[in-house]
Amino acid sequence: MEIHALAALEAGRPLEAFTYTLGGLASQDCLIRVCACGVCHSDLHMIDNDWGRSRYPLVPGHEVVGEVVEVGSEVRHLKPGDRVGVGWQRSACLQCLECLRGNENLCAHSQATIVTGYGGFGDYLAIDARFAFKIPAGIPTHVAGPLLCGGITVYSGLRAAGMSSGQEIGVIGVGGLGHLAVQFAGRLGNRVTVFTTSEDKARQAAALGAHRAVIVPPGESPPPPVERLDIIISTIPYALDAVGYLAHLAADGTLVFVGVPPEPLALPVRELVRGRRRLMGSGIGSRSRIVEMLSVAERFGVMPIVETFAMAEANEALERVRRNRVRYRAVLLAE
Amino acid sequence: MEIHALAALEAGRPLEAFTYTLGGLASQDCLIRVCACGVCHSDLHMIDNDWGRSRYPLVPGHEVVGEVVEVGSEVRHLKPGDRVGVGWQRSACLQCLECLRGNENLCAHSQATIVTGYGGFGDYLAIDARFAFKIPAGIPTHVAGPLLCGGITVYSGLRAAGMSSGQEIGVIGVGGLGHLAVQFAGRLGNRVTVFTTSEDKARQAAALGAHRAVIVPPGESPPPPVERLDIIISTIPYALDAVGYLAHLAADGTLVFVGVPPEPLALPVRELVRGRRRLMGSGIGSRSRIVEMLSVAERFGVMPIVETFAMAEANEALERVRRNRVRYRAVLLAE
Repeated sequence: MEIHALAALEAGRPLEAFTYTLGGLASQDCLIRVCACGVCHSDLHMIDNDWGRSRYPLVPGHEVVGEVVEVGSEVRHLKPGDRVGVGWQRSACLQCLECLRGNENLCAHSQATIVTGYGGFGDYLAIDARFAFKIPAGIPTHVAGPLLCGGITVYSGLRAAGMSSGQEIGVIGVGGLGHLAVQFAGRLGNRVTVFTTSEDKARQAAALGAHRAVIVPPGESPPPPVERLDIIISTIPYALDAVGYLAHLAADGTLVFVGVPPEPLALPVRELVRGRRRLMGSGIGSRSRIVEMLSVAERFGVMPIVETFAMAEANEALERVRRNRVRYRAVLLAE
Repeated sequence: MEIHALAALEAGRPLEAFTYTLGGLASQDCLIRVCACGVCHSDLHMIDNDWGRSRYPLVPGHEVVGEVVEVGSEVRHLKPGDRVGVGWQRSACLQCLECLRGNENLCAHSQATIVTGYGGFGDYLAIDARFAFKIPAGIPTHVAGPLLCGGITVYSGLRAAGMSSGQEIGVIGVGGLGHLAVQFAGRLGNRVTVFTTSEDKARQAAALGAHRAVIVPPGESPPPPVERLDIIISTIPYALDAVGYLAHLAADGTLVFVGVPPEPLALPVRELVRGRRRLMGSGIGSRSRIVEMLSVAERFGVMPIVETFAMAEANEALERVRRNRVRYRAVLLAE
């Protein structure tokens, strides 16, 4: 079968039409007809080879939503007609200690959807069915994609940092990830403080359920704390004053990074000893967290706010993502 | 009553005889006849005013073991004749959220034994009885002192980092704190790896129960990991290669600092995201942790290895501590 996709033929190039041939479906795979696919900054990093591990032609797209059209001989949990989503991870060994613990995202043999294969910017995607997740009926197709990468990243990060309910949760950045973190934290019974660069973004965050906003102009440190937070999640890929944010944590509080600043943090250890505070990082999430997150999103009405584009407008969408113009997540729709 | 103590009369000076007058005992206080007092690096930092908060005359000593000779009118849990210990903390508000949670060591109004009063280098010490802890019968007086500061610091740090049993625990540094961390981790059913500077220290650690040693010459980075550890506790006050040690952590592992390096760490956030690893700090421990730690020490035979000195030899003991000559903790004994 011929799959019609969009690919970067070399680093940094605009996407072009690219056709590849799919052989038979492996026993654990499923074939998905792509209905929608989110656009993530990581797609740009891969197109640009920022991480030095891109292979070309590179077909981006790892927030895929579509309809199962065929399943391999061993697939029991999916059937043609099911609506499923695929995120950053396409496979794991499923036998190592982390996989057995249900932490497939921490598996040393984890494979990424667009790193070791072709992604969702195409008419079809063949993928290990164990990494395709049924989308609950209450989540519309055109908004589901961003949950599979941006959504699970903040949800899993918040849970790993100990988010429960009745807590004070801080969110640094109100963008593709941050606008979902605000919703997850707030709808699950927490009070949310956003750290954002403008009054305009603060108002947008309030509309999403944030209770407080702290304005931190670009490149500046946060002001001294007025209230202390149990968890702060940093969703931004820019340099930040980690010590300034640690000061906003309550005793035993955690600052969790899901966005990666370009430069190392300068971290005086005494700032961690004081108040027994923690710093951690988190990336994507396990399969069980994805299923849980999708269920939470449906039941508590956590919905990505998206700008939609036709699949053929992928380059325009990528350019808006590159310029940080999107409110809050771009999604390509199949024609 | 006149108390005969040893004090630094100004920053960095050798200790001299110093007598102060104790008025009546406050209702929550107890008066302790000092039998032994450990010597800690923090005593030197306070004598030298390294933290800019020393007041003189400064009476050091915050690993105090002695006999209760008198109690205030409100004290019910102690009586004359009880053998008790006092550590770094002399009081807390006991009403804030952290105190109510049993985290008195995280109380914003915490007072340190030798910062806001006179310490244990004397014949008597008057202190809030709520911060004096009965020493279990199985712990000899001359070794009990170092448990009250060094011991609780590593025990609380390991517990805060999630130490349970059946884990792989790393200990950076085999000194006053490290030799206790090795014992606590090992005797509570964990496998212990020490990171130390010499084969000689590695042998000493093995005698204390360490299962593995990784030699890291002074100023160097640890070698690449062979085994992965669930928790690493850093007990050293020197600069270290945090990223090199993070590489020794298993997924979801924690690097906990109880020793404070002089310079900020340079920390690339991607090293935390990879494997969802954590970094935290911890200082001393709560009252409940102290009681628990003393009980564990008695029942599982965790005993500080000490060099003893007469109280009158305090300056000699301090000098040996300053030069890192002590194996592993110095203790002054009352005449």
